[in-house]
Amino acid sequence: MSRDIVNFNAGPAGLPAPALKRAHEELLDYAGTGMSIMEHSHRGKAYDAVHKETMALVRKLLGVPDTHDVLFLQGGASGMFATIPMNFLGDGQTADYVVTGTWSEKALEEAKLIGETHVAGTGGVDGNYTSIPSELDLTDGAAYVHITSNNTIAGTQFQSFPTTKAPLIADMSSDIMSRPLDVKNFGMIYAGAQKNLGPSGVVLVIAEKSLIERGSKTIPKILRYKTHADKESLYHTPPTFAVYIMRNVLAWIDELGGLEKMAARNEEKATALYGAIDASDGYYRSPVDADARSRMNIVWRLPSEELEAKFIAEATEAGLVGLKGHRSVGGLRASTYNAVSPEGVGRLVDFMAKFRAANAS
Amino acid sequence: MSRDIVNFNAGPAGLPAPALKRAHEELLDYAGTGMSIMEHSHRGKAYDAVHKETMALVRKLLGVPDTHDVLFLQGGASGMFATIPMNFLGDGQTADYVVTGTWSEKALEEAKLIGETHVAGTGGVDGNYTSIPSELDLTDGAAYVHITSNNTIAGTQFQSFPTTKAPLIADMSSDIMSRPLDVKNFGMIYAGAQKNLGPSGVVLVIAEKSLIERGSKTIPKILRYKTHADKESLYHTPPTFAVYIMRNVLAWIDELGGLEKMAARNEEKATALYGAIDASDGYYRSPVDADARSRMNIVWRLPSEELEAKFIAEATEAGLVGLKGHRSVGGLRASTYNAVSPEGVGRLVDFMAKFRAANAS
Repeated sequence: MSRDIVNFNAGPAGLPAPALKRAHEELLDYAGTGMSIMEHSHRGKAYDAVHKETMALVRKLLGVPDTHDVLFLQGGASGMFATIPMNFLGDGQTADYVVTGTWSEKALEEAKLIGETHVAGTGGVDGNYTSIPSELDLTDGAAYVHITSNNTIAGTQFQSFPTTKAPLIADMSSDIMSRPLDVKNFGMIYAGAQKNLGPSGVVLVIAEKSLIERGSKTIPKILRYKTHADKESLYHTPPTFAVYIMRNVLAWIDELGGLEKMAARNEEKATALYGAIDASDGYYRSPVDADARSRMNIVWRLPSEELEAKFIAEATEAGLVGLKGHRSVGGLRASTYNAVSPEGVGRLVDFMAKFRAANAS
Repeated sequence: MSRDIVNFNAGPAGLPAPALKRAHEELLDYAGTGMSIMEHSHRGKAYDAVHKETMALVRKLLGVPDTHDVLFLQGGASGMFATIPMNFLGDGQTADYVVTGTWSEKALEEAKLIGETHVAGTGGVDGNYTSIPSELDLTDGAAYVHITSNNTIAGTQFQSFPTTKAPLIADMSSDIMSRPLDVKNFGMIYAGAQKNLGPSGVVLVIAEKSLIERGSKTIPKILRYKTHADKESLYHTPPTFAVYIMRNVLAWIDELGGLEKMAARNEEKATALYGAIDASDGYYRSPVDADARSRMNIVWRLPSEELEAKFIAEATEAGLVGLKGHRSVGGLRASTYNAVSPEGVGRLVDFMAKFRAANAS
């Protein structure tokens, strides 16, 4: 086994080594049952314990209050883009969307198919998402306000969250569990697992019970949040292995000391990387407003696309993989999710210094 | 590691040992990449090869013609219960449902929320699903005809499929890949993976391209089959690890000789088990019509519920696990999916003989 690489993939992304090692050790025989956890019934004791432990860890790490339910769903964040307006955007209502990147746009497009929407703020002009709006133009009596807390492609992130009268719904797919949160301020938080929580195939949803109760009763039952809340996410077969890996990942965060510690670790990584960019005399350039810089997806440019391609090729050779920016924007991107260690980021910072020394004219 | 048990779980169910062993061997380092397959981008070379190989294996094993697309989706068969009528049951149309068990009922209930439905046949009276209808009362010009090919709870199975003018849509969650099929006779086949294909969290869909084209263009984009067909199931992040395990399972079926061989193996297992029931002088009793008996979920009763409980306890002790009938019907159930070996069924048959000798009065 050779795991000497540093995985900067944007998602599916690297998993913490201890979480993966634990999965490896018990893959063929879970807890002495003679079966893989994948082979256990979702209604049996072995999986039930994993399911409940994972929910308890979500509650503990994020301090989820009793007013909110924790759900494990399928369909990705992209599925939620549809089911959120289907559940909560009734006739005659308007939903506010803050559009700060490609994923916000997609969420908005799905909502437009369901009901009335209003763009309450954007992250830049002409699809150039370099900022986070400091003021929002909110609709009186909006059904909800939707934001994307971190923008994986643009490399921006809400540093603090707006206060809204309507339920605040946040897609936190790319920064969930990276920092402490005050969950009670949110009507709903949702996150596809494949960045900070586990493998693709499960979506974590944390939603206010009173909001869930107000969901549509005429859409198909499987698409109602209430269906899943009523059955503790066992209405139908959950993606058991994905939940199990999430358990391993959350247990690792818990052992590390929880989200305060994780936030400090992520800050350390981001400071090192932005520091390397800012200290490069403009050789490396962040296209993002300084006060909107993401701690999870750090994007930067080089003097030319040729140099960017060379950087990516040589970095890959050096074991630093996944650094190519999203195909829609180009450039470089280091996704420094929880699983990426400060040492891994240190290797990238060293590589950046050497590359610049060798290639700056 | 102790894998001396025989797993008769109804789903999530046992996986073929070679498929699981392969996953174990490469869990931490997939194909020398230094990363788990879970950690690879769904747009990278490593996963893309797995994705395409899995699709190719589906096409090869089932002989899927070019007229049909192969999709990997999320949300389980229960998700399809909603998205099928949302896509294909338009205003002024009627969809025919053949109701042969609990899962057909659930599919019908979701469709009723979308449009007009008609029950074209049932598997028994008063919710007592012991048969498969030999004749159907089909609607002229129906949007589609929906059947459940195998009924996991009732233990019944279509031995052959009806000929319909409207597209025939079959939930094959519990018998996909257990026998050869003539795919061209179906508008759509779908199957949650967790019985014969892999872990829970991925649904295999095989659908006629012309049917997909006719799907609704006004429902949310993520819920349209066309969205996924157009992007070869990479419109959003697929459940990559679940697809990967499906690849391992299908490769195992292929190595075994394909679906003719698999059908013969399943027939051998079912013959042994039904033989043990029928030769027990009524001690073991099949509640199902002889011509409707499932080859995948074999259900039977004992003279009393007390004896059934004793049977389950002693069988579990002997390493024969997962034999408890569904909580809604009671009794015994052996799910003899592809991964269950003839030797495993032989152990159950031996146990049945010994139990009867010790407990028959």
